This record gives sequence, C-alpha cells and structure tokens, in this order.
Amino acid sequence: MNAKVMILMGSDSDWEVMSEAKRALDDMGVACEVHVSSAHRTPERTGRLAREAAGRGIQVIICGAGAAAALAGVVAAETELPVLGVPLAATELRGLDALLATLQMPAGVPVGTLAVGKAGARNAGLLATRILGCADPAIAAKVREQRERMARDVEAKDAALQAKLGAAEK
Amino acid sequence: MNAKVMILMGSDSDWEVMSEAKRALDDMGVACEVHVSSAHRTPERTGRLAREAAGRGIQVIICGAGAAAALAGVVAAETELPVLGVPLAATELRGLDALLATLQMPAGVPVGTLAVGKAGARNAGLLATRILGCADPAIAAKVREQRERMARDVEAKDAALQAKLGAAEK
Amino acid sequence: MNAKVMILMGSDSDWEVMSEAKRALDDMGVACEVHVSSAHRTPERTGRLAREAAGRGIQVIICGAGAAAALAGVVAAETELPVLGVPLAATELRGLDALLATLQMPAGVPVGTLAVGKAGARNAGLLATRILGCADPAIAAKVREQRERMARDVEAKDAALQAKLGAAEK
Amino acid sequence: MNAKVMILMGSDSDWEVMSEAKRALDDMGVACEVHVSSAHRTPERTGRLAREAAGRGIQVIICGAGAAAALAGVVAAETELPVLGVPLAATELRGLDALLATLQMPAGVPVGTLAVGKAGARNAGLLATRILGCADPAIAAKVREQRERMARDVEAKDAALQAKLGAAEK
Amino acid sequence: MNAKVMILMGSDSDWEVMSEAKRALDDMGVACEVHVSSAHRTPERTGRLAREAAGRGIQVIICGAGAAAALAGVVAAETELPVLGVPLAATELRGLDALLATLQMPAGVPVGTLAVGKAGARNAGLLATRILGCADPAIAAKVREQRERMARDVEAKDAALQAKLGAAEK
Amino acid sequence: MNAKVMILMGSDSDWEVMSEAKRALDDMGVACEVHVSSAHRTPERTGRLAREAAGRGIQVIICGAGAAAALAGVVAAETELPVLGVPLAATELRGLDALLATLQMPAGVPVGTLAVGKAGARNAGLLATRILGCADPAIAAKVREQRERMARDVEAKDAALQAKLGAAEK
Amino acid sequence: MNAKVMILMGSDSDWEVMSEAKRALDDMGVACEVHVSSAHRTPERTGRLAREAAGRGIQVIICGAGAAAALAGVVAAETELPVLGVPLAATELRGLDALLATLQMPAGVPVGTLAVGKAGARNAGLLATRILGCADPAIAAKVREQRERMARDVEAKDAALQAKLGAAEK
Amino acid sequence: MNAKVMILMGSDSDWEVMSEAKRALDDMGVACEVHVSSAHRTPERTGRLAREAAGRGIQVIICGAGAAAALAGVVAAETELPVLGVPLAATELRGLDALLATLQMPAGVPVGTLAVGKAGARNAGLLATRILGCADPAIAAKVREQRERMARDVEAKDAALQAKLGAAEK
Repeated sequence: MNAKVMILMGSDSDWEVMSEAKRALDDMGVACEVHVSSAHRTPERTGRLAREAAGRGIQVIICGAGAAAALAGVVAAETELPVLGVPLAATELRGLDALLATLQMPAGVPVGTLAVGKAGARNAGLLATRILGCADPAIAAKVREQRERMARDVEAKDAALQAKLGAAEK
Repeated sequence: MNAKVMILMGSDSDWEVMSEAKRALDDMGVACEVHVSSAHRTPERTGRLAREAAGRGIQVIICGAGAAAALAGVVAAETELPVLGVPLAATELRGLDALLATLQMPAGVPVGTLAVGKAGARNAGLLATRILGCADPAIAAKVREQRERMARDVEAKDAALQAKLGAAEK
Repeated sequence: MNAKVMILMGSDSDWEVMSEAKRALDDMGVACEVHVSSAHRTPERTGRLAREAAGRGIQVIICGAGAAAALAGVVAAETELPVLGVPLAATELRGLDALLATLQMPAGVPVGTLAVGKAGARNAGLLATRILGCADPAIAAKVREQRERMARDVEAKDAALQAKLGAAEK
Repeated sequence: MNAKVMILMGSDSDWEVMSEAKRALDDMGVACEVHVSSAHRTPERTGRLAREAAGRGIQVIICGAGAAAALAGVVAAETELPVLGVPLAATELRGLDALLATLQMPAGVPVGTLAVGKAGARNAGLLATRILGCADPAIAAKVREQRERMARDVEAKDAALQAKLGAAEK
Repeated sequence: MNAKVMILMGSDSDWEVMSEAKRALDDMGVACEVHVSSAHRTPERTGRLAREAAGRGIQVIICGAGAAAALAGVVAAETELPVLGVPLAATELRGLDALLATLQMPAGVPVGTLAVGKAGARNAGLLATRILGCADPAIAAKVREQRERMARDVEAKDAALQAKLGAAEK
Repeated sequence: MNAKVMILMGSDSDWEVMSEAKRALDDMGVACEVHVSSAHRTPERTGRLAREAAGRGIQVIICGAGAAAALAGVVAAETELPVLGVPLAATELRGLDALLATLQMPAGVPVGTLAVGKAGARNAGLLATRILGCADPAIAAKVREQRERMARDVEAKDAALQAKLGAAEK
Repeated sequence: MNAKVMILMGSDSDWEVMSEAKRALDDMGVACEVHVSSAHRTPERTGRLAREAAGRGIQVIICGAGAAAALAGVVAAETELPVLGVPLAATELRGLDALLATLQMPAGVPVGTLAVGKAGARNAGLLATRILGCADPAIAAKVREQRERMARDVEAKDAALQAKLGAAEK
Repeated sequence: MNAKVMILMGSDSDWEVMSEAKRALDDMGVACEVHVSSAHRTPERTGRLAREAAGRGIQVIICGAGAAAALAGVVAAETELPVLGVPLAATELRGLDALLATLQMPAGVPVGTLAVGKAGARNAGLLATRILGCADPAIAAKVREQRERMARDVEAKDAALQAKLGAAEK
C-alpha cells in the first residue's frame, strides 16, 4: 500500500508526540511515511522532500516542529499539496513560540495548523483522513465511524461516572 | 457550477475579512457559497448547515469567527468534511481569543486553523483549493501557477526597489 | 430531593477538578446532577441536555472544559437558564486557551466565567448557590454562614501563625 | 418599579461601556440602579453599597472596572448576592489586566465574569435577567424571546448577504 | 522594639514565600509584625488593620497575595502609609494574574509592586528598609552595607568559578 | 526649597507621561528635580546622578523608561535611596516589555514598580509623597487630604450621573 | 565600494521600517545591498541569495520579516555568515508572532535578534557595524564616535528640558 | 591562546545553562573567558569588564541573565564590541521577562538576542564563532563543517527512525 500522507518532524525527539499522528492514520487505515528533516539543520533535504512528495503519490503533508517552527511553512512554500502544521512545546515558552511560528503564515502560502502537542498531532492525522475522504467514499465512511465511536466513548464514560456517583451516595 | 466550498461566518460584520477567502477561491476558479450563521446565536441552523454540507456536494468548509470563536469546532463536530478555521480580531484582545478558541481543539475533532485576519482568510481559500487539488489535477495545476505568480510578484517588487535605490544614489 | 444545578464537563478526566463544584454544592445542601458531555465529541447529546434542563427543574448549569472550551457557550446558546463556565488547564497553555474560549462570548449569549481550575470550580458551586438564594431565603442564609465560616478560618490561621512566630522568637 | 439589579462602576468614564448593561436590562423590562463607586477611591462607600443591596431588594450586582479591577471581588466579599464582573479596557494592556483581576478570584468568594468591554457589559445585563428568570417565569419567557429575536436577526443578515452576493454575480 | 513594618498576606499558604520579606527585615534589624488577612475573605479585618496601622507606629505595609490579588490595593485605599505589593504565583497562570492585579492600580491610589514570588518578597523587605532609611541614618548605613555584602558575594562566586574552570583545564 | 524627589527618564519623549509624576508632587507641595538620562545611552551620567542623589538631599528617586527599561534597576543598583519605576508604553508591545524589565528585579536590588503609563507616573509621585510622609506629619496630612478629595470627586461624579439618568427617565 | 552587509526583507512593504537599517549603515559609512526576497514566496531565490552572499564579499546579513517570520532562520541555515533578524509588527498580534518566530531558533543555527520594528532595524545596522569593527579599527572608531554622539544628544535634550522647566517656574 | 570571547552571567546559578556557550566555543576551537558579574549587584565591576574587554583582545561579548535581565544592555552601553544576549528562565514567568528585557533595546545600543535557555546559550557561542569567521577563513571553515555535521546528524537520526519503524511493521 503506497503512502498517501507524509509526516515530517524537525527532530527525532519530536517522535513521542508526532507518533500520535501516525497512530490516528493507522487507526483509519491510511498508509503514511515518516521522516526526520529540519527546516534549519537540513534545508536542502527538507526542500527536496517537499518538492518530490506529490510525484511519489503523497496527497497530504503533516509537519511537526517546536521553537521557531519554520518547517510547515517552508514545506508549504515548496509544494502544491495541502500542508498541516503541529506546533510542539519544546522550549521554556511551552509551545507559544511554535504555535505563532506555524500559524501566522503570510497570505499566499497556507498552512492548516492544529493544537499544540499530542491533541494536535492526533488531529493532524484525522484532518488528513478527512481530506483524503473528499475523494474517497470509503475513507469518508471511516471518518463517520470514528466520530460515532468517539461519541459512544463519551457516553460510556458518563455511565461509569453515574455508577460511581450512585455508589458513593449509598 | 456547483459550490465545492462553503464559507460560514458568525456575523455579517466578518464579511470584510472573510470575503478574502471568497476572492482567493474566485481567483482559482473554485465555486463557493457563503452563509452567516453563528455557533451561539443560531446553533440549530449552524448544525444543519454542517450536517447537510457533504450531501449537497460541499467538500471543504471554511469558518471565520471572532471572540470565543466556537464556530469552526462546532461545525467540525457535525461533519466528516475537512474544516478550516479563520480567527478574527473582533475584540479588545485583537484576535488572541479567537485564535486559541479555534486552534486548541481536543483530540478527535480536527480544525485546520489559519492566521488571524485577512491573511488567514485568503490562505483558507488557498488551502481549500490545495485540498480539492488532491483529487483534481486541473486544480493542482492552478495552485502551481498561483505559486509561480506569487514568486514573480516578489521579483518585480525587488526590481522596483533596486530602481528606486539606484535612482536615489545618483 | 430534585437537582437544581446541573454540572457538565467535556471529559471524565475533568472530574478531579469539577468535583470541587459538587463539593461546594453538597456543603451548602444544594442537590445537583453531573454529566460528561462534550461540545465537540457529543454535540447532539450536549444540546439535548441543555434544552431539557429547565423542564427538569434545573435552575443553574455549570460547565467545565479545557482547551478550545466551547461547552459553556454552546450550552448557553440552547437554554434560558444562567450558565457558569469553569476553564480548565488541560493543555500546554495552562488554561489560557480555555479561559479566553469560555469568557469572550459575543453579545447576546452570556456565560458567567469563574477562575481557571479548582478555585473556579468551587466558586461556580458557590455562585450557583448565591443565584438560588435570590429566591430562597434559606439558601441565602447558608451563603451568609459560609462567608462567616470563611472569615473565622482566616482568623484561626492568623492565630496559628502568631503562635508559631511567637514561639520562634523565644 | 423597584430596582432588582445594581450596576456599579469604578469611574464615570466607564459609563460609555457600562450603559450597555443598563440597555440590555431596559430591553428586558428589568429595573436597575446605577452608581459610580470605586474599590480604591471610595472603599467605604463601595462596602456600604454592597452590604445594603440585599436589604433594598437588589438581587444581582453588576460591577464594571478597568486596570487592577478589584471592584467585583470587593463587592462579592461584602454581600451574599450573585455578583457579575465586567472587565474594561482602560489601560495600555487593553483589558488583560482587568480581565485577570476580575476573573481569578480565590476559592470562597465567587464572581461571574463576562467578556472585556461592551459585549461583556451587554451580557452582564442578559445574565442578570437569566438569574432573575430562575424564579420568575415572565422573565424567563423574555429570555426565550430575546434568543429567538437574535436568531431571526442572524437569518435576516444572511438573507441580505445572499441578496448582495446574488446581485454581484449578475 | 516596636514594629515599623507590617506584613499582610491573604492566606497562610503564602507564608513560605512571604517569610522572605521578614527575613530581609530581620537581617537589617528592622522589627515587623505579620498578619494573615484577606481582601476577599476578611474585608472588614483587612480594612481595620490598614486604618489602624499608622496609629500603631507602622511606617510601611507589605502585602503579598496571589490570584486576583486585591490586597495591596485595598490596603492602600485605607491608609496614608506607603504600601508595597508582592504578587504570588498561586494559580495555573503562574503569577501573571497577581502581577497585573497588584500593579495596574488606577491613578490616585499608589502601590509599589515588586517581582513575583520570593525575589519580590525579599525585595519588599529591602525596599521597606530603604524607605525607613530616608529618615534614619543608621538604617541607611545598613542598606549601604547590604549592597556591599551583595557585591562581595558575587565576587566570591566568580572566584569560585575561576577556580573550577582553571582546575578543569589542567 | 530643596528638591526631595528626583525624576529621571530615559528620553525627553517620555516627558509627556512623566510630567504626571511632577504634577502629583507639585499638587502635594513636594519639590522635585527632573533629568533626562538613559541607562543605555548615558550610563556614566546615570550612575553619577544615582550615586550623588542622597548627598544632595534627595530622598526618593522616580525612574520612567520604556522598551528594555533598565533605568530604575540600574539606578537602584547605585543608591541606598528607595527607587520607584514607571514602565512606559514606547514600543509595539505596549509597555509589556517595560513592565517586566522594570518589575522583575533579582533579589537584593529593590524597585517599587507602578502601573504602565500616566496612571503609574501620577502614582509614583503620590507614593513618593507617602514615603516622605513617614517622617513628616505635615506631608502625611496632605496625603490624607488627597484621599478625601479623591473620594469627594467620585461622589460628585456619581451625583452628576444620577442627575443625567433621572433627567433621561422623565 | 563593495557591499559588506546584505539587507533582506520578506516584502517591499517592510521597506519603511527596514530602511532604518540602511540609514544606520549609511551613517557609519558601511556599504550595503538590499533585496526583497521571501522565505515562503520565493524560497529558491532566498536560498540562493544566502548561499552566494559570502562569495560576493558580504560579511553580515540582516533579515527583516513579519508574521511567521522564517526569513532570518532560513537564511542562517544556508550560510556561515552571522545573521541578524528584525521582527516586524505586520499583523494583529503586533510583532509578538514575528519576535518568537525569529528569536526561538533551535540549537545549531544561530540568529541574533533585535527589537521589534524601527528600533530593531536601526540596531541591526549598528550591530552589523560593530561586527565589522572587530576586524577593522576604522569602523570600531566610528562606533565609539556614534556612542559619544548619542550621549551628547541626551545631554542636549536634558539641557533643553531644564531650560523649559526653569522658564515655567518663573 | 588568548580569549577572543568573554562570557558574562549575572549569577553563578546561570552556569548550568551558560556553559553551553562555552562548550560551543570549545567545539569550534575558540578560546573564551567566563565571569560572574551582575548589572544590579556589581554595576561597577560589570562596567569595568565591559570597558576593558576590547583592550584585552576580546572581540565578542556574550551575556546571560534572567529576570529583569539588564546585563547585555548595560554591557552594550559600555563597549564598541558586538554584544550577544541570552535570556534565562529564572523566574515564575519562565524567561518571558528576561527575553523582553534583553531584546527590546532602544535605538542606538544594539544587542543581538538568542533564544531563551540552553538553545540560546549554544547559539550565542555559534554566532560568536560566525562573527569571528568574518575575518578569519579558518574559523569560517569550521562553521561550514559544523553545519555539515549537524545535517549528517539529522540524516543519521532519520535512518535510525526508519529502521525502528521498519522493524515495527514486520
């Protein structure tokens, strides 16, 4: 199965968080590839990965980076594919730096930014799946199932809480 | 031509900024529809628009809202389509409120967030186009053209600056 | 005893903090019910809980949520009851996101927001009690007692400090 | 008609914003009284107004203040009534100071805080009305009407936008 | 020896930090008294302590408080003595709330604010000493000694570092 | 009459704000001197002014500065007098930079910081007066009068508002 | 005279601010060249300018950019020359975004960042001059002169203020 | 070998972070000296170190400080050498205070600021090396090697990740 999503991250220390994106894609049955490549430490490699992605069949690129997180913007500058950015909390400023550096792109070069950290990484995988679902009804159906599963989870947790509170009152 | 993108905004006073999203889509030849609908003032109508969008052929939803900007998240909760959020600077806090309220979605319900204000609105249009381009080579070609046009623009502005600086030195 | 206050929270992991609201209500002798329901993961259920609350005799709704905390606003949009919001520190941004997402409601749909975290949860319970006290002199009397108890507590702590400091000087 | 809501503000320069609270109450047919009284400049007078409010038939107190906005907290410390706070943008920090000074009350003394500025002032009036509606079905009915009016307003604005966009396309 | 400085704090849990102010005063040979009294939980007691301080011979008041830290401002409103405020990091917002609530006093009621936390508590003691030194040459001499001691400390630490670095190079 | 307070500011463009400090001192009958001297542009001159102040009879030093506002801290490092700092909003960051640069002094070198801008400048003058009042009953009496005048002002403004509202109701 | 400093900026609208850098260099007699080139709109051109700079005799590169300001970091990634970054206030967030995006570079790729806006642009020119002065005594002498001129300016402004205040007292 | 870089820090507790600057210089074969000297605790010593540096052959000064970090600015005010500042996270505000106090220098006295904490300390060492490389081709060659080494490191980490992911799939 060919990868349709490419996950890039600036450092291998980002993998603990960014693996959530892969896990979300795995759950939805979407193949992805993962690379460590930095906007600042390996600019040439990053540019090449961005430029060659569409030709290799990649349809969405997910970029996770912390600090002065330039990765998503730099990749968006070199591809016509949709690029999603995940800001990581890698410094004393707890991700506020990465958030603004990923989000505040100038007009003309779009990056769709997700929340800081693990929630954002997971949602990047899910948003990539929704994007692929635009053209693939089987994937769209899986998105609907994921939403229903999530709703049932909340209901199960509520039931457990009611049980606990009921027991406490006796 | 059927609309493939739906633009929602919480108030008609958001139109001055959000029309940039429509302009970007118009420039790329992508048809869209636009609605005023609020997460807080018309929750039922907003939910219905979100739930019915996929059935009407919409493939991407763009939501612009200011203040406690719940619109994009609420819409993402009711559709399997990709949802893009544009935070608007509508309060004394200059959009920091809308930015965090749009971006920091919990795991499970993704919103791709763009920059605050006009740059973000324009980029939401361009990212929607890139998403449509995943499945439509003609649209992908237009994205490539837009990127080349943008690069030529920068070069033209540099040439104008060199001319001005050269003239000033004589 | 029928519940007069409904406590909603977006996730069962919020219970550690939100149980402070229930504890405050228990201390004041006010019955409440508690539900896990998310604005984003179970929008339909959340809307139904909000719309049906007044009919079931609920008089105040307390909503606790973190991240892009849309819960209180979405509930306020679906009820005529007073809604109180407690922002929770659930992300790297330590509750600043939830604070702004809960507080900065647009004109027309009010949410009374409390402090981030446990102090806010406890105060939500106390504010609900004050609201019920508007129409119930017995409850108002309990609010007066709670304030006096609190003042005596501070005085007792001061006395303990004076004793400690006095002992240290000898 | 006796006033059921008291609006306090720290300075008469706050009236331009705080009159929105009165306007909302007037619209809902709820009588209110208004006073200028400062936590810092007239502490004795502020304490007296707070302590005597319940005895005069006041049921909700709304406090608007900017800068180190202590007013709502100081009033909540001296009454058993529900107190609502409106942070005002009166300094270079655009209301962030007043927001945190109003919102972050310690456990035991609750203040329900609304958004910074005019939206918050209007919502304070509407939340006071919802609180009064807990015990007065006629007021609760007015809250339902206000919500319906607001929804119809949004729909009318959407219709106007569709007309404008339709005209532009011809 | 009569106390010339009064230290107030909103909660006995603030003592770990505020004891630094007492320690600084002890080091400088200035007598102080310490009380737990809250602007919100014991407003009457706080007002009385503030109003009676000058009559008892107090010359400077130091107030430490966290969250919506109204203590210093409320005290300054009730005395003609100089009041110093120490913001404490007591909430998820790490003292930013207390900082703004203490510092941003409206014109007319001054509070001299120190840094958040222990450094601020110690400096409040030292600033109180400087204030007393205006009228007491013996105290002013102690301030000069404290400054010289501090400078010698830095020099001693530099010498230790040079020794460590020199040893490492061999 | 010899100056007892010295006002320093980093740039003559700060005078519009810092003249509020002089006006407050003038109102209270306290003589002051004013100098432009920068921590960064004229370090030697600033150090000399700080070191010589006590010898010339100065008892309190007020420093106003914007941006990376080092002035108050640098002056406090070179004198045993109490130093008050006024952060000015001189950059795009609206005084947040000057606020933190003035306030967050390390333990050992105290600066009493006032609010950003004009309110802070006026309060610096008033706090200097309170400090002088510790040793001079005539000045302390003036502080009491200033507080009473301020309270009467608020009452007069309230009366004017009542008149306006009463007229509007007829 | 060959350019020793290259000034890059992301957009020609940045020229109003960035011309301060050129003016500072002109004042110090240091030749520079200026280009419009964007990290996001013209990545290839930006990379080429960065890589070729050292070979053309450039010794310092100054980059000014707003929003998600990636320019300085991307240039530093492609050259061994010292790179200075000037964050510009180009969005609703007033330069806080550009500040963090420029400053918070990961270890390995250094950017020396200056203040937001015109002060930062001017200082970038002056810091470039100081860097060139390391190896060129004539330039170092000019830096000393600039510092003395600046000090004399402050003294002249102080004299003017004394004259104005003296005249006002008569 | 004579030191060409001087590292200053405000406190010996800063050494754990600032030793990263020395390590970077050691790695590049550049000799440095290190001193503890505070802008606020030892102003005279700091001024002397700054003024004498150029005469002793120092070419770049690196200053690390936390809180109201005045050190870099005060040093830049007393030398014609390039000064680099490293903000340290020494308070509850996690370095935001030091960041703004170091970065926001007024026009005329430049400081090149690096990221908060260890990344910034390391990059200060690397930027000093780039500055020395302007006039010394052997050092410039080392900068090129450092960049290549860093790129190879990223590639090695990517290879390790691919191996791990490949193994996991079997």
